[in-house]
Amino acid sequence: MTPAEGQGGSRLSRRRMLGFGGASLLVGAAAGVGIERVASATDDGKQATASAIPFYGPHQAGIATPVQDRLHFAAFDVVTDDRAKLVRMLKDWTAAAAAMTAGKPVGAGAVGGPDVSPPDDTGEALGLPPSRLTLTVGFGPTLFEKDGKDRFGIKAKRPAALVDLPQFPGDRLDPNRCGGDIVVQACADDPQVAVHAIRNLARIGFGVVAVRWSQLGFGKTSSTTPDAQTPRNMFGFKDGTRNVAGTETSALDKHIWADKADGSDWMAGGTYLVARRIRMHIETWDRTSLGEQQDVIGRDKNEGAPIGQKREHDEVDLAKLKPTAHVRLAHPDSNGGVRILRRGYSFTDGSDGLGRLDAGLFFIAFQRDPRTGFIRIQNNLATDAMNEYIQHVGSGVYACPPGVREGGHWGETLFG
Amino acid sequence: MTPAEGQGGSRLSRRRMLGFGGASLLVGAAAGVGIERVASATDDGKQATASAIPFYGPHQAGIATPVQDRLHFAAFDVVTDDRAKLVRMLKDWTAAAAAMTAGKPVGAGAVGGPDVSPPDDTGEALGLPPSRLTLTVGFGPTLFEKDGKDRFGIKAKRPAALVDLPQFPGDRLDPNRCGGDIVVQACADDPQVAVHAIRNLARIGFGVVAVRWSQLGFGKTSSTTPDAQTPRNMFGFKDGTRNVAGTETSALDKHIWADKADGSDWMAGGTYLVARRIRMHIETWDRTSLGEQQDVIGRDKNEGAPIGQKREHDEVDLAKLKPTAHVRLAHPDSNGGVRILRRGYSFTDGSDGLGRLDAGLFFIAFQRDPRTGFIRIQNNLATDAMNEYIQHVGSGVYACPPGVREGGHWGETLFG
Repeated sequence: MTPAEGQGGSRLSRRRMLGFGGASLLVGAAAGVGIERVASATDDGKQATASAIPFYGPHQAGIATPVQDRLHFAAFDVVTDDRAKLVRMLKDWTAAAAAMTAGKPVGAGAVGGPDVSPPDDTGEALGLPPSRLTLTVGFGPTLFEKDGKDRFGIKAKRPAALVDLPQFPGDRLDPNRCGGDIVVQACADDPQVAVHAIRNLARIGFGVVAVRWSQLGFGKTSSTTPDAQTPRNMFGFKDGTRNVAGTETSALDKHIWADKADGSDWMAGGTYLVARRIRMHIETWDRTSLGEQQDVIGRDKNEGAPIGQKREHDEVDLAKLKPTAHVRLAHPDSNGGVRILRRGYSFTDGSDGLGRLDAGLFFIAFQRDPRTGFIRIQNNLATDAMNEYIQHVGSGVYACPPGVREGGHWGETLFG
Repeated sequence: MTPAEGQGGSRLSRRRMLGFGGASLLVGAAAGVGIERVASATDDGKQATASAIPFYGPHQAGIATPVQDRLHFAAFDVVTDDRAKLVRMLKDWTAAAAAMTAGKPVGAGAVGGPDVSPPDDTGEALGLPPSRLTLTVGFGPTLFEKDGKDRFGIKAKRPAALVDLPQFPGDRLDPNRCGGDIVVQACADDPQVAVHAIRNLARIGFGVVAVRWSQLGFGKTSSTTPDAQTPRNMFGFKDGTRNVAGTETSALDKHIWADKADGSDWMAGGTYLVARRIRMHIETWDRTSLGEQQDVIGRDKNEGAPIGQKREHDEVDLAKLKPTAHVRLAHPDSNGGVRILRRGYSFTDGSDGLGRLDAGLFFIAFQRDPRTGFIRIQNNLATDAMNEYIQHVGSGVYACPPGVREGGHWGETLFG
């Protein structure tokens, strides 16, 4: 193997370099290659998105970040009562998350350790670019108190805004798709990168956490870029056009980021995540007339414009919409001006055994306070005409702490 | 709305065009735009693959075609005994498949019909490029005969090669993930496009077929381009390097395409598809040493080279591999020279209720005769060291007829 071959895109393990090329390769041609993943075109010539999203900062990435193409969302149960073990794992997770979001493998990588040990990284993302991976952590109510027990000495720190969600009319929640002590939202433009990240966190957490449930999302349904066209959901419609964009700094401060003034110091710069697995009865929807579909949503199907307007981003004239139209009931003007930041994904998990696709929207919303955010809006949607075509089957609410400073770790403000 | 606006990327419905712009738009500026989906960059600037794969030809697309990024595979039961209805549906499916693979909506589109009718197309792919969508149909043994009944008068046409798969050691098949009278393999670079295609075929087939099971695949694990690097599977390894590439014309003729000489005229130019849902026990795998992992597979993890060689595509020296190594047992030289064409995808369907990821490989292989292809190889894999880490939980074998000529339809050679 010549130095030129080493430079030409082949990923070299430390072992291999030492075995075939000698130590000089480490200093010379292979600098910056080594055991790190390298951003490169994929094998069939498609230029992949090579950009990495910074992991450290005042807010966690994956919230105001422009929405990536794919999602792997995982809810974990903590299976130990040992606070020190939990904090240790959160530190290990942080180091792994910082590496993976930068396009690097966990620890010494999939091939970097001794042959007699399991690799530090599972390897299926070797050679893939960072793909704008973000990892966003949230803490569920049960982390603070479960069955009346203050498991980790943080019961007193449970934020007032981290309420248990009420039962909404029409809910048909599956306990196996609800809750979780800790959640991680992995978003990336390549699903293999998102799945790899969750898998490696689960592996690192062995003995401390276990996966309670997880959800893959294949198609983004929200845009957090204000001038972009909103992607279509499984109803074939654009929805959520009026939600907070990731670039609206003052709206983010007002509606999304928690503040010390809200009562929980450790949550300043954080936010609250509400997740809902919303099954869509798409077979029924697909047999509904175009006119009815448009009345239910309150937008025209083609352009996505509010009924009576021409363009998606035209101002909504609520009076032109049916009283039960989804857009009307969800609109800030129908909810005391409240706005949320949506980051939902379409899902299709095969079929349901009755010949119907198990498909719908995995709804994710961030807000400063769920009581005045999701809960208020969801209560207002009780008369939503869309309810005939959907069913909420999974649910969770989580406190997402602020971003991590370099040298810090997830949960530092809560446990530190 | 000016003609210039109409040309600028906005998708206009016929209704809207007539309403705002007048009929002249139909002739002038909007020619080629209209109700068709338009290949364009997505909203965040990523240049999507705009290419369409030709639907018509001597062989079905989606077999020798360079592997796309995503899969939606659906198995249908035929729920009628009416042969004419079935053939009518296959004709309707063919028209829809020809349209969707060209990036066009089904029929009059999602917004093209009258308001009082359900749209012909469900709409969620409006505005998305063709994304190299291919739709490949296959007929299962039960279409020819079920419970001793010749349901559609084609029992005598069942090919000798379309055998029922035997029970293999270690199989743990879930009947709800096996079989099916008709399958459709949808592959595309955008999952929304693949899901849209299956959903619309299911909708068109209402009353004739019902979805029996379906599977999404998020990451390709095979390359059918001979000089490409093979993508990594969920074990973090490259596998299947020696399988037939889509460009190897003589190998395709020898190993993949059925011939009249094989005994079934109607299958000439067709092939046989074997699907296996292979669950990987990745938590166990991830705790296995690197050395053991490499011994099990028979390749090094980093480069993908056969043990003892330097590069993925270097010739395998079988003597250097353990007798139980996967690569050794699956190699053509261990199986009388037989080769198959693999098109498998990684899957992750959330978690399994025991805190483990429900993940693995959805194996898809095409071959001229399953008896000398998959069945022979799978029998030889009985001593595969990999069996400790995998379990086959779903299965199916299907006859994929030859390609469709323009004006023809799926199943024409069988039912015509």
